[in-house]
Amino acid sequence: MNKPSARDRLAQAAFDLFNESGYEQTTVDDIAERAGLSRATFFRNYPSKEDVIFPDHDRLIEKVRDRLRSSSHATALAAVSDAVRLVLLHYLDEGDLARRRYALTSTVPALREREIVSVARYQRLFREFITEWMGDSTQSAALRAELMAAAVVSAHNHVLRRWLRGDTTDPVREVDEAMRQVINLFTPRASGSGADGTTVIAFRTSQPLDSLLPAIQDLLEAGA
Amino acid sequence: MNKPSARDRLAQAAFDLFNESGYEQTTVDDIAERAGLSRATFFRNYPSKEDVIFPDHDRLIEKVRDRLRSSSHATALAAVSDAVRLVLLHYLDEGDLARRRYALTSTVPALREREIVSVARYQRLFREFITEWMGDSTQSAALRAELMAAAVVSAHNHVLRRWLRGDTTDPVREVDEAMRQVINLFTPRASGSGADGTTVIAFRTSQPLDSLLPAIQDLLEAGA
Repeated sequence: MNKPSARDRLAQAAFDLFNESGYEQTTVDDIAERAGLSRATFFRNYPSKEDVIFPDHDRLIEKVRDRLRSSSHATALAAVSDAVRLVLLHYLDEGDLARRRYALTSTVPALREREIVSVARYQRLFREFITEWMGDSTQSAALRAELMAAAVVSAHNHVLRRWLRGDTTDPVREVDEAMRQVINLFTPRASGSGADGTTVIAFRTSQPLDSLLPAIQDLLEAGA
Repeated sequence: MNKPSARDRLAQAAFDLFNESGYEQTTVDDIAERAGLSRATFFRNYPSKEDVIFPDHDRLIEKVRDRLRSSSHATALAAVSDAVRLVLLHYLDEGDLARRRYALTSTVPALREREIVSVARYQRLFREFITEWMGDSTQSAALRAELMAAAVVSAHNHVLRRWLRGDTTDPVREVDEAMRQVINLFTPRASGSGADGTTVIAFRTSQPLDSLLPAIQDLLEAGA
């Protein structure tokens, strides 16, 4: 087995100490000492105590941004749904470390808040991407982009939390299913805003819609 | 005109000083001195410097919770959409103070973060309310509640920010319209999850669906 890097040893020591003595009570000096490294080494690896817990946020958000930029998906929402999968896979790859972080953020309000703020960064990135993609500067397009970004982020977090809590062993399948649900939510339903008199039906058919619609139109007019 | 209360004088002094000298540089002593009041009076009115900027969060969230509890709406989403209107009206009522706060939170990261955290509290309250209302503990119901809560909060914030930036003079109409859009988003579309082969159409008709559906069914089968 490879010898763990200074970075990993510091993270390990930090999580151990946070558990034993509490996050607030643990100092950078305590962490360095436990890891058998110097304070200077700590700061070469992490800008602050908080960064031991969330070391990859900036890098991860850049990866997500790159993925969006190079996206070849048909719709903005599909591109965003695909990009958010990267985030999930990152945490799955972290494994136990992600779960220890979750235990800590659940009990230390300052860390929980930091996490909420970082989630908001993804949401903002997605909103901006969707808005740009739509190329529509109307107020209703802006609202739609906002709702889409919020939905993608919520769906991702929902599945991530289920995995962190041990409620699912197949988070990748679940996140794909959740994203399908989000995309379905925003699939246009022909005309109408659900106002009075609008009827929406869904059915399975292999017939082309072009041939069906005139027949349905006839039906509606016959009954009117 | 009534003499402003100590509380209002402190808020006024705080916002003036934050503008002049910056948020970080301003101390509680500075604020008290500018208002011509004592440090003790400051702390009788506000627990901390931050609370001058966000004095009503706790009270407001309690009002929203009460509104939800006493809701007589037909669906959880309608109840939540109605309750979130309270938040908008609160900020409209604040008027210029809300706009000054917005200017400040846009430039001071610590305040922006505090605001993001407070938005997350509403989202959580709504999610819990919707989950309880639905009385359905399946994973898909939990995801749905999460998506609904995120949508309501995003739609509200979208309109609130438009008003704060001076982009709309009729935020109440806009928030009602945005909430209709959210409710429409989650209105069930008969069967199907948008999987391959599901077609969704919407039309306006005064005919009862019961009489139309068999005829449409015939059409589909005829073509199959």
